[in-house]
Amino acid sequence: MEKNGAHSFLSDTPVTSLTMSVPVLRHPHVYHAFISYCADADTSHARTILDSVESRGFTCCFAERDFLPGECTSDVVVDAIHCSKNVILVISPASLQSEWSKFEMLMAVDDSHQRNNVCLVPVLLGGVKVDDLPPPLRPLTCIELMDDFRNTDDIIQAISKPEDTWESLLPVGNLAHGFAWGYYYGYLKIILPDLDKTVRQWRRVNNAEGRMSEKLFLFFPQSCRCRDSIADESSLIKHRGHLPIITKDRAGIIERQYKNTIYSVTDDNGEDYFFAGEYIGVIHTMFEMEQNATTGLQTREKYVQSMRFYLTLKRILDTDPECSKKCKIVFYKDVNNSSDAMPKLICNEIKNQLRKESSDDTTVCMTPFNSPFPSISSPDFARCSLKSPSSTNMVKSEPNIYREESGKTKSVERG
Amino acid sequence: MEKNGAHSFLSDTPVTSLTMSVPVLRHPHVYHAFISYCADADTSHARTILDSVESRGFTCCFAERDFLPGECTSDVVVDAIHCSKNVILVISPASLQSEWSKFEMLMAVDDSHQRNNVCLVPVLLGGVKVDDLPPPLRPLTCIELMDDFRNTDDIIQAISKPEDTWESLLPVGNLAHGFAWGYYYGYLKIILPDLDKTVRQWRRVNNAEGRMSEKLFLFFPQSCRCRDSIADESSLIKHRGHLPIITKDRAGIIERQYKNTIYSVTDDNGEDYFFAGEYIGVIHTMFEMEQNATTGLQTREKYVQSMRFYLTLKRILDTDPECSKKCKIVFYKDVNNSSDAMPKLICNEIKNQLRKESSDDTTVCMTPFNSPFPSISSPDFARCSLKSPSSTNMVKSEPNIYREESGKTKSVERG
Repeated sequence: MEKNGAHSFLSDTPVTSLTMSVPVLRHPHVYHAFISYCADADTSHARTILDSVESRGFTCCFAERDFLPGECTSDVVVDAIHCSKNVILVISPASLQSEWSKFEMLMAVDDSHQRNNVCLVPVLLGGVKVDDLPPPLRPLTCIELMDDFRNTDDIIQAISKPEDTWESLLPVGNLAHGFAWGYYYGYLKIILPDLDKTVRQWRRVNNAEGRMSEKLFLFFPQSCRCRDSIADESSLIKHRGHLPIITKDRAGIIERQYKNTIYSVTDDNGEDYFFAGEYIGVIHTMFEMEQNATTGLQTREKYVQSMRFYLTLKRILDTDPECSKKCKIVFYKDVNNSSDAMPKLICNEIKNQLRKESSDDTTVCMTPFNSPFPSISSPDFARCSLKSPSSTNMVKSEPNIYREESGKTKSVERG
Repeated sequence: MEKNGAHSFLSDTPVTSLTMSVPVLRHPHVYHAFISYCADADTSHARTILDSVESRGFTCCFAERDFLPGECTSDVVVDAIHCSKNVILVISPASLQSEWSKFEMLMAVDDSHQRNNVCLVPVLLGGVKVDDLPPPLRPLTCIELMDDFRNTDDIIQAISKPEDTWESLLPVGNLAHGFAWGYYYGYLKIILPDLDKTVRQWRRVNNAEGRMSEKLFLFFPQSCRCRDSIADESSLIKHRGHLPIITKDRAGIIERQYKNTIYSVTDDNGEDYFFAGEYIGVIHTMFEMEQNATTGLQTREKYVQSMRFYLTLKRILDTDPECSKKCKIVFYKDVNNSSDAMPKLICNEIKNQLRKESSDDTTVCMTPFNSPFPSISSPDFARCSLKSPSSTNMVKSEPNIYREESGKTKSVERG
């Protein structure tokens, strides 16, 4: 099998069954692996993997068997992932289109970053290749499952190996936390506190009431490439001035200036809307590093770093509503975009925010709408923020799976 | 023994001798440990540690025995550290005053960060406490050696344990690489290229020839606390204006401004000197994080993070003479400083640079003069930059230590 750059476990000759010791589970883990799969298309494949893994003494969490009917909500998935030592991601063409599967992938990646442990095992079905995967999964060691399942030992080996930190995948060193904390303390905490007031003022003076959100839009292109001006994205976007400049002595620079730019964008009906916006400038560093071979930052690694930055910044902003209420991170896929993609994206964002601001919906909701897995748009995720699992209410107690004779399992007791 | 916050291996009751397996050495390691000690005061203690460790099957590099007479130069130490799996730092009141010992500590910390492996074992003698150590060593697991040496097994245990990354000491996540790369690409690469020209111009116009270096001084206080203005440090320092403002569209901010401030400083003879200077603003984030309990950044961890940032930024600047020639990182101890410490420090730096600039000494020399181990001032280090060891010329071949009958060892063969 042609090596596609990713280190793939797939060996040409089937691996003779290895005697692998079953690792001891420690709190909070009660499962060796959570198996994430697309229920509509891949249940039978997933079941075969489940049987193969559990026949070797491992314990898995399997939604069809271990979730109570009707209980398959986002919180339950977050808890299941949190209680599992690894996550086996069964990825097929169908799951790459399924909103729910992409949501589970995002939660698994988030939990893995929080633990700082690369505990994700992508298992590829139906011809899916590494480059088809959402970027943050591409650097991982993937297993392309053979049609006759004869390489399931690769999965068992993957969930038996010692823990590994994300740093081990980041030859350049972890950039995320420095970027995120530096951006928050060195910039957002300075410009955001009064931003809504200055936007309201600009809006009034420039007759833009009802056509301008109070928030600062922070654009996060997936490639991390920030243009000099957002107007460079499309002729439908124009530079319209800036908010009052904040001047401040900071770290030895006297009267340092902080400036936020105003743009207009024309929608499909020829109507102009306005927004205070900029790219998250610090991510451009990753794009510049990728262009400079001496830094050694590979495209694959850039996706992991930018994902970690995205999750870290969100977690920091979650702790500071004063700031998070006044900005909106807009993550978008900017590769091979049509020229009107950006104006459409911005108009949608403005209209979304205007609806919320008019209904005075103050819940701080960092929905994964525009998450790094673009086009998760199902309303079902609207309330699910990237919170760390507050309680392991789903599987507090030892899982007590009672296998009925018919082989259909039903979890009898769930704390 | 009262726990001083640092996890100390010191057990109250002597540890019964443990059977510890001797780890296999892999390239480039040919020693299990390099023993760094102050030759003037601590050779006998160091020899006892050497005998105790080697009696258990470990191989050590010991300067008195393994360096050829007269060969104890900085390069040889850097190579010895590089070829050793661990570094045992024998630290006494004397070694804390010895320039050479501090240099060896700095090289050991630098190599450890490069490997991203916490392979340093501080062994404290003569009542030295953790808080007496240079800050970057404080978070490490230290061993307070008992007068009767009965806890040397703690040392053996420390050099036998599996490798550990610096991330494991950084609960907040590694900040250094993000800060360093972001600061370099997002700021220094924008402001430094033409800075010398604009300084020369300012110097001419303001009659400051011979009293102003062409370089931008980047101040790096050990506490990471950056004041709003450098003039806040002392009445002998005054704000005198700024270099021409650089205006640039960047990441969606139109006509963003980059401003560098000019100060004057009066020396002991009442003479005014001038400098373009500022703090490395991004490190102030670590000070703010330390003040905010929710971030969880401890003082001890801040020192490790700032040290990593310092080493990473130096390494990045080493690759870009265009930038490194035009700035000078001035690291200084700012805790309990007398009020005239800063003016003295700055005057020395300006006069130093003026001497170099007049002798057109263009060697890019990032000497550890003002390294995180302040007051390494011996000229012997002038030429030693924090380069990664180019060759292992000192110990290319397997060490072949021939013990003479008299117990005095002499290395017979060194490749």
